[in-house]
Amino acid sequence: MTDTLQSGRNRIQWAKAHMPIVAALGQEFAKTRPFEGLTLGICLHVEAKTGVWLEALTKGGANVVITGSPGTTQDDTAEAIRADYGVQVLGHRNETFDDHIEQCRQVLRAKPQLLSDNGADLHSLLFSEEEFADQIPQVIGATEETTTGATRLRELAPQQSFPTLVINDTQAKRIVENRYGVGSSVVDGIMRATNVMLHGKRVAVIGYGYCGSGVAMRLRGMGAHVTVVEQDPLIRLEAHMEGFPTEDLEPAIGDADMVVTVTGYDGIITREHFPLLKHGVILANAGHFATEMELDYLRSEATQVRRIREQVEAFEFRGKTLYLLSGGNLVNLAAGDGNPVEIMDLGLALQALSLAAMAKNAREYANAPQPVPRGIEMQVARLAVDHWIRKGLS
Amino acid sequence: MTDTLQSGRNRIQWAKAHMPIVAALGQEFAKTRPFEGLTLGICLHVEAKTGVWLEALTKGGANVVITGSPGTTQDDTAEAIRADYGVQVLGHRNETFDDHIEQCRQVLRAKPQLLSDNGADLHSLLFSEEEFADQIPQVIGATEETTTGATRLRELAPQQSFPTLVINDTQAKRIVENRYGVGSSVVDGIMRATNVMLHGKRVAVIGYGYCGSGVAMRLRGMGAHVTVVEQDPLIRLEAHMEGFPTEDLEPAIGDADMVVTVTGYDGIITREHFPLLKHGVILANAGHFATEMELDYLRSEATQVRRIREQVEAFEFRGKTLYLLSGGNLVNLAAGDGNPVEIMDLGLALQALSLAAMAKNAREYANAPQPVPRGIEMQVARLAVDHWIRKGLS
Amino acid sequence: MTDTLQSGRNRIQWAKAHMPIVAALGQEFAKTRPFEGLTLGICLHVEAKTGVWLEALTKGGANVVITGSPGTTQDDTAEAIRADYGVQVLGHRNETFDDHIEQCRQVLRAKPQLLSDNGADLHSLLFSEEEFADQIPQVIGATEETTTGATRLRELAPQQSFPTLVINDTQAKRIVENRYGVGSSVVDGIMRATNVMLHGKRVAVIGYGYCGSGVAMRLRGMGAHVTVVEQDPLIRLEAHMEGFPTEDLEPAIGDADMVVTVTGYDGIITREHFPLLKHGVILANAGHFATEMELDYLRSEATQVRRIREQVEAFEFRGKTLYLLSGGNLVNLAAGDGNPVEIMDLGLALQALSLAAMAKNAREYANAPQPVPRGIEMQVARLAVDHWIRKGLS
Amino acid sequence: MTDTLQSGRNRIQWAKAHMPIVAALGQEFAKTRPFEGLTLGICLHVEAKTGVWLEALTKGGANVVITGSPGTTQDDTAEAIRADYGVQVLGHRNETFDDHIEQCRQVLRAKPQLLSDNGADLHSLLFSEEEFADQIPQVIGATEETTTGATRLRELAPQQSFPTLVINDTQAKRIVENRYGVGSSVVDGIMRATNVMLHGKRVAVIGYGYCGSGVAMRLRGMGAHVTVVEQDPLIRLEAHMEGFPTEDLEPAIGDADMVVTVTGYDGIITREHFPLLKHGVILANAGHFATEMELDYLRSEATQVRRIREQVEAFEFRGKTLYLLSGGNLVNLAAGDGNPVEIMDLGLALQALSLAAMAKNAREYANAPQPVPRGIEMQVARLAVDHWIRKGLS
Ligand SMILES: NC(=O)C1=CN([C@@H]2O[C@H](COP(=O)(O)OP(=O)(O)OC[C@H]3O[C@@H](n4cnc5c(N)ncnc54)[C@H](O)[C@@H]3O)[C@@H](O)[C@H]2O)C=CC1
Ligand SMILES: NC(=O)C1=CN([C@@H]2O[C@H](COP(=O)(O)OP(=O)(O)OC[C@H]3O[C@@H](n4cnc5c(N)ncnc54)[C@H](O)[C@@H]3O)[C@@H](O)[C@H]2O)C=CC1
Repeated sequence: MTDTLQSGRNRIQWAKAHMPIVAALGQEFAKTRPFEGLTLGICLHVEAKTGVWLEALTKGGANVVITGSPGTTQDDTAEAIRADYGVQVLGHRNETFDDHIEQCRQVLRAKPQLLSDNGADLHSLLFSEEEFADQIPQVIGATEETTTGATRLRELAPQQSFPTLVINDTQAKRIVENRYGVGSSVVDGIMRATNVMLHGKRVAVIGYGYCGSGVAMRLRGMGAHVTVVEQDPLIRLEAHMEGFPTEDLEPAIGDADMVVTVTGYDGIITREHFPLLKHGVILANAGHFATEMELDYLRSEATQVRRIREQVEAFEFRGKTLYLLSGGNLVNLAAGDGNPVEIMDLGLALQALSLAAMAKNAREYANAPQPVPRGIEMQVARLAVDHWIRKGLS
Repeated sequence: MTDTLQSGRNRIQWAKAHMPIVAALGQEFAKTRPFEGLTLGICLHVEAKTGVWLEALTKGGANVVITGSPGTTQDDTAEAIRADYGVQVLGHRNETFDDHIEQCRQVLRAKPQLLSDNGADLHSLLFSEEEFADQIPQVIGATEETTTGATRLRELAPQQSFPTLVINDTQAKRIVENRYGVGSSVVDGIMRATNVMLHGKRVAVIGYGYCGSGVAMRLRGMGAHVTVVEQDPLIRLEAHMEGFPTEDLEPAIGDADMVVTVTGYDGIITREHFPLLKHGVILANAGHFATEMELDYLRSEATQVRRIREQVEAFEFRGKTLYLLSGGNLVNLAAGDGNPVEIMDLGLALQALSLAAMAKNAREYANAPQPVPRGIEMQVARLAVDHWIRKGLS
Repeated sequence: MTDTLQSGRNRIQWAKAHMPIVAALGQEFAKTRPFEGLTLGICLHVEAKTGVWLEALTKGGANVVITGSPGTTQDDTAEAIRADYGVQVLGHRNETFDDHIEQCRQVLRAKPQLLSDNGADLHSLLFSEEEFADQIPQVIGATEETTTGATRLRELAPQQSFPTLVINDTQAKRIVENRYGVGSSVVDGIMRATNVMLHGKRVAVIGYGYCGSGVAMRLRGMGAHVTVVEQDPLIRLEAHMEGFPTEDLEPAIGDADMVVTVTGYDGIITREHFPLLKHGVILANAGHFATEMELDYLRSEATQVRRIREQVEAFEFRGKTLYLLSGGNLVNLAAGDGNPVEIMDLGLALQALSLAAMAKNAREYANAPQPVPRGIEMQVARLAVDHWIRKGLS
Repeated sequence: MTDTLQSGRNRIQWAKAHMPIVAALGQEFAKTRPFEGLTLGICLHVEAKTGVWLEALTKGGANVVITGSPGTTQDDTAEAIRADYGVQVLGHRNETFDDHIEQCRQVLRAKPQLLSDNGADLHSLLFSEEEFADQIPQVIGATEETTTGATRLRELAPQQSFPTLVINDTQAKRIVENRYGVGSSVVDGIMRATNVMLHGKRVAVIGYGYCGSGVAMRLRGMGAHVTVVEQDPLIRLEAHMEGFPTEDLEPAIGDADMVVTVTGYDGIITREHFPLLKHGVILANAGHFATEMELDYLRSEATQVRRIREQVEAFEFRGKTLYLLSGGNLVNLAAGDGNPVEIMDLGLALQALSLAAMAKNAREYANAPQPVPRGIEMQVARLAVDHWIRKGLS
């Protein structure tokens, strides 16, 4: 056995040990064979958690072709997936974006009846390239991981001829991933990036939605003194009742040892705000876009910018030093280790059951992007209760 | 400027930004010059936090010779310390244990009047080797970082001729380092080692002393379901009142997804207990010794042992898989990033003021190992209030 | 000045000190006079918080006639309201239910243009009694406090000729009252009723909705060991992630020192469950109906029932003693002191602004029961941010 | 059976249901009969919890004479104790202080071999009045509940001829009563006294010792925004690390909606501080003395003082209204319901075992006031683990 094969298998084993829902679905699919005779064309990060999911799909009879996201493929995991589950895995770590697009085409050339997409890459080629015109009617259903992908879809093919279930828009993911998963992985990312102690740190958390409230609670759970900034008065009131001092943006950041943005909007911390910050402040972003802070401005105005730790840049700006984590990118993903395994157990279970539902009877669904039906969401929640809570690990 | 020099300076700058107490002592020492004309012989990890402290000592007039602990010297930091503070730094990353002992001798050959020791290495050579006999009367005082070092001292030289202040035995360190520092760095270490989510995990914390209670509280702060095991009934009662379910060892570990030992004693989890654990359990130690679990036994009885992630070994044992973090070593240090900067700010401030007190009037102290006087401890606490709390960062 | 007048004024002063939103609306209404020339007919508990609100309405030019809920009128407060705000207050502490209905009729006989109702008592007389037929077209708008009242309305007068804004169905109330208010007042009620310590008590909280999650969090905040029982798997998952052990009903109550029901459903703890309870268990209900537990059965099967403290009955049932708080009625209201002042500040502000909106332009609203418009809800939230958070008390 | 007898029995039954340790000691004493042939003379509040304890002592063979504290005797409970346990109970609710002293004399006239004292009233008569001179040598041992009583003793009879074990100075009581018990009963007392919501209230807690840290944690657990004021820098640091913002006294109280003193010292809030307080602030004390605030001054300078609720006085002072709870007396005891039952279970168990130890072999102890021996404290802790934790209620 090669070293890389073993290494890939190790990764998958570790992931599987913490993905009891997808593992259980695999056992069930081995009996019910929902994908018998069907080809699945997939575009998703090729890493260990995906490996566990691919095992489940193939146990269910699926013939699978997958390409990873550009440049994120774990080569050892890919090798194990090929060797152990008979899946055709396209791509590798050092591929270019053009390679990626070509691999997406190869996925479509395998004539899949079901698509599992991420950012609408497969859908978009399917609907836009001549080569795949005949392919469209053969597709019976699809899933799309992201909300952004779903928006893109609605513009691309206003009258698409099959249903696409959008995984991200579920209450289950909002709670498990946004509130709890992000909350803890942001804490993890900040600790790794900085090695500072959170106890006693004054942290301004900007935004108290699903993610922001999770971040605020976990930072508090680590002994930080959190102040919440939130522009919606009703949500601000909620933070206040929950025990968080709330403030308007300017006083809050002027008093902070650390500022974490989690709003999903551009231009939260702008050129007007940088001069208010304290010497030595740490800036981190956990919202979707690095543009929550006006970093271009900061970068151009700073008299010096130095990388002082792997994930920390020091900006000399008007006589103060400001420290930026992970270049303003999502600090939990950039400085940490990505989403915890359990989040993907839940998300990939939603994927697996959505695909199985369409394999069984795609005609029940409208031919358009749409949320995962409540029935499937509840089924996954029930499985989480069974496997995460009732059975524990064993 | 070399790359390594710059890299060392970056490390020290980052540390200094979070060590306001030692930095402020440096400024004061520059005026009061407590170490004028004195040579300090030091044995301590050569890393960035130590660099900030050495700057303060040299500002105070000290002539310094230091050797690191065996094999932990950061070469880039050493280069910056030599270049910027005129300190003689002995040793490098790839040194052997014999190299280390020889470097300790070199420190003594520099004829220091003050010693700062770690594990009693300097003291022990001083008192045992012929070569240093004449040296003894010239030493006016010393510090020793560890409690173990202090115990060793009492045996070595029952009638030593100068005072040695033991840094570790202070309430300030117990609270800041043991309760809060360890609590958060253990959480950090576990998250890094595993990438699992702590929310909802059943964790048995064994031992509820300063460290264990901190670990229990931080894990709870991250959403884990913590059960405490504690043999002292009074302390168990405290955990119970604080909101933790408490149990006897066997039921607690039999129900756990994760077990963390923090007792400071050997043989907590023994050969009798491994069979009780659940398939898939994660085992971690945050107590002083890897021997809190009977790992030799586990290692010899397991049918297979594989490293499955950098800090995770999988043991196949009687039909179950048990996962051990960091080989049973202190999980916060091994899988994490060592003590947070702020802990060292406090600990090194105790060191600096203890050395300065002895430089001023060592005769006030008994000629024996002894705790840091309460006055110095209170002074450090006051500085922490000033610099960590009143002034914040700026 | 009579003693009762002074006592009523004291109560109102205390309430007003903690009702800054309604107090501020009073000042604004004094300028804008939204109710100039209008008569308001009201059915609501006559107590101090209502007094503060009535002051605001009369400052806004309203001519007010009010009757309390049956048997809850505080006579001293009524006296102060009459004396100080010129409001016509009907009813007194010892009135009968028939008295109450007759007083409702008197309210309608005052020919109000605006109604403020509680449980639809005024609406129901208006639509059902011949005497008031001519009155209907003169009513321009109404508010109804309760969801139950709104349901009753929809049946009573399917085509009513004016809008009724239902106060209870707002996110603001759900958060402030259900999650936070009920959470803390339930803790208060239980402590008063029992004088037991919550630290270390095993409490099963049944239902983890807005109220139940608040109850669970506050009990945890007081050191109780809370287990959550929730039948919706998605909500159960949320409780699990939030750090609460969750269980199915039967094991949870069998292990509990205390059981609190908060589901809003009948028959949660039934005849099958009583035998599972531990000797000495304390039973409390915080959901809307005493029927969450099958108390008729318990009462008839118990060999002895004794009132052992003011709010505690001891049931001897099959060799065990079960303790029931407040006869199964809402323990926060029955054993405690009713809703905290601040909750009513928010709720009555919603009332005041809803009435003012209809006074200004009732025709904007559909002629039917309906939720408070989001604009009004946001306005109240903004006022809460201003007066509770920005200004603090002063 | 009279109504008062039944009422007393009910109270004792309720207390006993939550005093499993003392109840279990009673069962053991029934077998071991440690007090066979001995007379116990007691001075302690005559209320239900004491009743449970007296039952245990009499089961152990004791002949008991007891007088309550002045004016706190529950007459119904006294009746039940007399009827059911054959104890001679002196005193009643409406007694004067002189009555009380005379009753103490009567206790001594019963020629007790063991004393259980509260505030040293019995000891002091014994050592000072001629009548009891002969009595002294017959006393073999005693307990004293309070620290103050013990101090008084040391002055009274520097060479006393028997040991007196001081109950209050144990780690068990410090944790269970001061940290956890006081924390929760202060929250209870404030909620009862005021009916305000704690969520979102800015509360300054002055003093972060055993009691103060408990108060701060429970208020936080109820959603308050707590700021800690503590003069000891080391303890302040602990509060800071635990997640509490800390401040110096003046800024903290100037920003507070509520101020709670818990220092044990006089003159914390003085005439200089009252003008800094906000209009509408609520003032409460949980430390031993009402003199933590300079209330005489406030009372004399206020232009008006009115009782506005049962436990609330409103002071008009320099254009602001300040609200004082319970006249500055311990707010948990004055506005609440006294110590929770469980605290007394622990405290009276310490009493019972201390008395039994002296009955068995008083000569093991020095003839002086002294702490409860660690062995007894551990025994009580073990019993708490057994009865509160292992066995739960049943
Ligand atoms: N005590 C008080 O002062 C107040 C009480 N309430 C009452 O409290 C009750 C709950 O209100 P909310 O929490 O706002 O409603 P909600 O609808 O948010 O929550 C109720 C929860 O109970 C769960 N549930 C239902 N049956 C169950 C069962 N058999 N086992 C376990 N869980 C079960 C539901 O799934 C739901 O999550 C209602 O009756 C409401 O009228 C509301 C406001 C004030
Ligand atoms: N409410 C109740 O039922 C009970 C009250 N107590 C009383 O509570 C008080 C406190 O007791 P413990 O917390 O056990 O004592 P403690 O000695 O542990 O704590 C008192 C704290 O107050 C701090 N302090 C003193 N002066 C201060 C100032 N000017 N500003 C800020 N902080 C200051 C001290 O540094 C110390 O940390 C005592 O008077 C005690 O008798 C004790 C038990 C029950």
